[in-house]
Amino acid sequence: MPVEETVKAYYQYVKKIMDFNEAIALAEWDMRTGAPKKGISQRSEVVGTLADEVFKRSVSDEMKHYIDVLTDPSVQDELSEVTQRMIEKSKKTYDHYVKIPAEEHKAYIILQSEAQSVWQDAKSKSDFSLLRPYLEKIVDFKRNFIRYWGVGTNKYDALLDLYEPGLTVETIDRVFGKLRQGIIPLVQVVGASEEQPESSFLSVHFPAEKQKAFCLHILRENGYDFAAGRLDETEHPFETTLNPGDVRVTTNYRENDFIAAVLGTVHEGGHAIYEQHISRDLVGTPLCEGTSMGIHESQSLFFENFIGRSKAFWEYHYDELKRYASGQFDHVPLDDFYRAINKSHPSFIRTQADELTYPLHVMVRYDIEKALFDGNLEVRDLPGVWNEKMKEYLGIEPGTDREGVLQDIHWPAGDFGYFPSYALGYVYAAQFKHAMLRDLPDFDGHVRSGDIAAITQWLSEHIHRFGSLKKPLEILNDTTGEGPNPDYLIRYLTEKYSEIYRLNC
Amino acid sequence: MPVEETVKAYYQYVKKIMDFNEAIALAEWDMRTGAPKKGISQRSEVVGTLADEVFKRSVSDEMKHYIDVLTDPSVQDELSEVTQRMIEKSKKTYDHYVKIPAEEHKAYIILQSEAQSVWQDAKSKSDFSLLRPYLEKIVDFKRNFIRYWGVGTNKYDALLDLYEPGLTVETIDRVFGKLRQGIIPLVQVVGASEEQPESSFLSVHFPAEKQKAFCLHILRENGYDFAAGRLDETEHPFETTLNPGDVRVTTNYRENDFIAAVLGTVHEGGHAIYEQHISRDLVGTPLCEGTSMGIHESQSLFFENFIGRSKAFWEYHYDELKRYASGQFDHVPLDDFYRAINKSHPSFIRTQADELTYPLHVMVRYDIEKALFDGNLEVRDLPGVWNEKMKEYLGIEPGTDREGVLQDIHWPAGDFGYFPSYALGYVYAAQFKHAMLRDLPDFDGHVRSGDIAAITQWLSEHIHRFGSLKKPLEILNDTTGEGPNPDYLIRYLTEKYSEIYRLNC
Repeated sequence: MPVEETVKAYYQYVKKIMDFNEAIALAEWDMRTGAPKKGISQRSEVVGTLADEVFKRSVSDEMKHYIDVLTDPSVQDELSEVTQRMIEKSKKTYDHYVKIPAEEHKAYIILQSEAQSVWQDAKSKSDFSLLRPYLEKIVDFKRNFIRYWGVGTNKYDALLDLYEPGLTVETIDRVFGKLRQGIIPLVQVVGASEEQPESSFLSVHFPAEKQKAFCLHILRENGYDFAAGRLDETEHPFETTLNPGDVRVTTNYRENDFIAAVLGTVHEGGHAIYEQHISRDLVGTPLCEGTSMGIHESQSLFFENFIGRSKAFWEYHYDELKRYASGQFDHVPLDDFYRAINKSHPSFIRTQADELTYPLHVMVRYDIEKALFDGNLEVRDLPGVWNEKMKEYLGIEPGTDREGVLQDIHWPAGDFGYFPSYALGYVYAAQFKHAMLRDLPDFDGHVRSGDIAAITQWLSEHIHRFGSLKKPLEILNDTTGEGPNPDYLIRYLTEKYSEIYRLNC
Repeated sequence: MPVEETVKAYYQYVKKIMDFNEAIALAEWDMRTGAPKKGISQRSEVVGTLADEVFKRSVSDEMKHYIDVLTDPSVQDELSEVTQRMIEKSKKTYDHYVKIPAEEHKAYIILQSEAQSVWQDAKSKSDFSLLRPYLEKIVDFKRNFIRYWGVGTNKYDALLDLYEPGLTVETIDRVFGKLRQGIIPLVQVVGASEEQPESSFLSVHFPAEKQKAFCLHILRENGYDFAAGRLDETEHPFETTLNPGDVRVTTNYRENDFIAAVLGTVHEGGHAIYEQHISRDLVGTPLCEGTSMGIHESQSLFFENFIGRSKAFWEYHYDELKRYASGQFDHVPLDDFYRAINKSHPSFIRTQADELTYPLHVMVRYDIEKALFDGNLEVRDLPGVWNEKMKEYLGIEPGTDREGVLQDIHWPAGDFGYFPSYALGYVYAAQFKHAMLRDLPDFDGHVRSGDIAAITQWLSEHIHRFGSLKKPLEILNDTTGEGPNPDYLIRYLTEKYSEIYRLNC
């Protein structure tokens, strides 16, 4: 068969896998946004059946054939860049799964599904001992998987690569180490400052319907395309891509905490705007998605922090906010509002942390994961180490495991290696902003006048449109001229918090 | 392989097909209830991929093997009734498709998809000539399919069997003939009556939000289980079953026509209550759905007409309705309200017809379909024959094709044979009500006191729980002791409309 025909057959084959994935994504969105509860267990079986199809097709003999033919050095010249990257990605998935014995993989899938149920119970009872045996088994599986995959310099690198291809312990140690040195002293002086912002007006009752209307308004203003998406309500906000013309976001309206809904919406909107701008040429290929968790988070945090928490943003939106609110901001000067929504103090729960302390929460988890796979840490030691690390980085120690080691679903879900991308994304975002300033020196002016389009256009041109055609470090280097560098984030936080807390540094 | 193991493998095989079908149903529900429009074309491809899987598995060699083994007379004794009925249904689907040459089937699928787009355009321009060439081809395909399937007494029987297994031209001619003789004179005296109900208060502005709240209330009162369903808004109301724990309904709120939303909701709720009560033992089998279009419609029309349009129902709900409304009913006596919502007059559009004239709309279509397949009628004659039949049955003639032959999507969608089930269902419903009165003689008393549960329990016991385990005529005979008999419907309509229009008959 001529290569051209193999390529065509491969595209058709892969397109079907993408279609199955879209059906899975829709079923999962539906289960989280309002599917009737009596239908859930059967719906889960539907997801299982579809996921099984995706799995079988990803490791089939047919897929192996495409990979063998299309990764042969003799045909590389005939392949487009898109095809080369596609087959590379298909090969990565193939290798990932075929190296694990089928029975072991199946047992692992069942285990992590059970572990997530057990985790909910353990969290509500704040009892780590309930989760411990499950987590021990999950870590054992992961250690075996790493062995099957073959090890780089550090074992943990194999897990990092699943979420942030190309990133290693060596790089992250350097980036996080420097970031920590920049942030910890800042957190300390901020905490000691006598200029604590007043923020009681933020918790005045704000009806959910009004919050929703305001969130819809803000999303639209930020350039989220409602003809290619929709906003729903869920317990935890998320973004999900069904296809680039259908990128959905959700948020949660707590009536005594409207700013969480607004910033949550802006955050998920950032993820969605990324996906909505991926080139249509990539539809139906596995490249039609954000290139890594870190780059994805760089886009959501760019919108949440550099836009949504900026003074310029509220200079543009504050009067409008007052129209949706019930009078609680009428006598609050903009500057006081701005300081209130940026109030910072060490807290226990990562997802509720402010933008200054957030990276430290990630580092606690990173250190633990690294030690589990490359050090001597065992699962039984987790609660103790967690509390020590919190004390060391944030100066506070949780009184319960619910507020500590049990707070996140990631570990019972088997997602070791995921956490670092949250902080890496933040680092990237600051680098992108620095690079953007060369082309858009009056960044604040654009935000202040509601011209988010200029910013999105820049992000699309350098980041969004490529989907997974470029790897995360490629995007970063091509756009900023360097690798991960925490200096820009440190500078941003130092300047911003010095002003808010009127520090003399 | 022992039969027991073949049965087990067959169940697993069929369960996957059901899972794919559930994913398709969800994708279609989503496209109709609010999927962003830019994602629709890719979503349609997802549906195509899943439907293709269902098709392939339904006619595969593996399926043939199960059918061959499990329909062998020597193993019948070893099979449960459920398994026997399942394999019978699988065989019917298998035979249906394998008898049509694959290329021809594919061409037909593409054609009817195109024809539906063309129909929308033709309808909006009220120009039948645009649709005509497509409809001619569809009819040609159908005529060929009938030949492939093998013909009974009448060719049209093969199409009827797709929607109402066991029903034939012979039976329907008899039933519809008698029904027509009962209804047409009644329509005429109703039209000539000087006691026309006043109904202007029905079109007073009724805010959509209030309509929705009232519809939710009524659905709940009727016993629709919201833990196994949800109500959404769409242009045309519909019910869709994802699985028996997830049976969704939709309605449409027109602010000058609240009763359409309420009765539409009650109608779709009737479909849904049927599906919600199918025995859980049938989940994952092809028997876990209503047994035919006619039996399905008998349940929706039972709720819509015998409950929702009854005086007893509004005796229970009228005060509550006044609380949702804006005062327009405050000075309207219940009897006037009841007469208004049952006002009858010949009109052009089937879906907006009242319960008295409705069956005549169906008969116009039935006569035409029968003549297309067993008579000498050709597609080019359709607009003329349509208008003649309307004149003959309803005494009125549409001025445009939009209000005439172009009004329904069924023909461009290839659904010939479907229409009769609408009127058959109505006939069945009246028979069921007659049979129910033996066990629940105070039917009106139950409705008047809001005790719909007693009625649903009876329907569930005799009809719902069987799903497709019994064929439609089996259900009808087992429940009423006879076959299709229009006398009960004629009697119901005569009594009801004589009272409303104060006739002396």
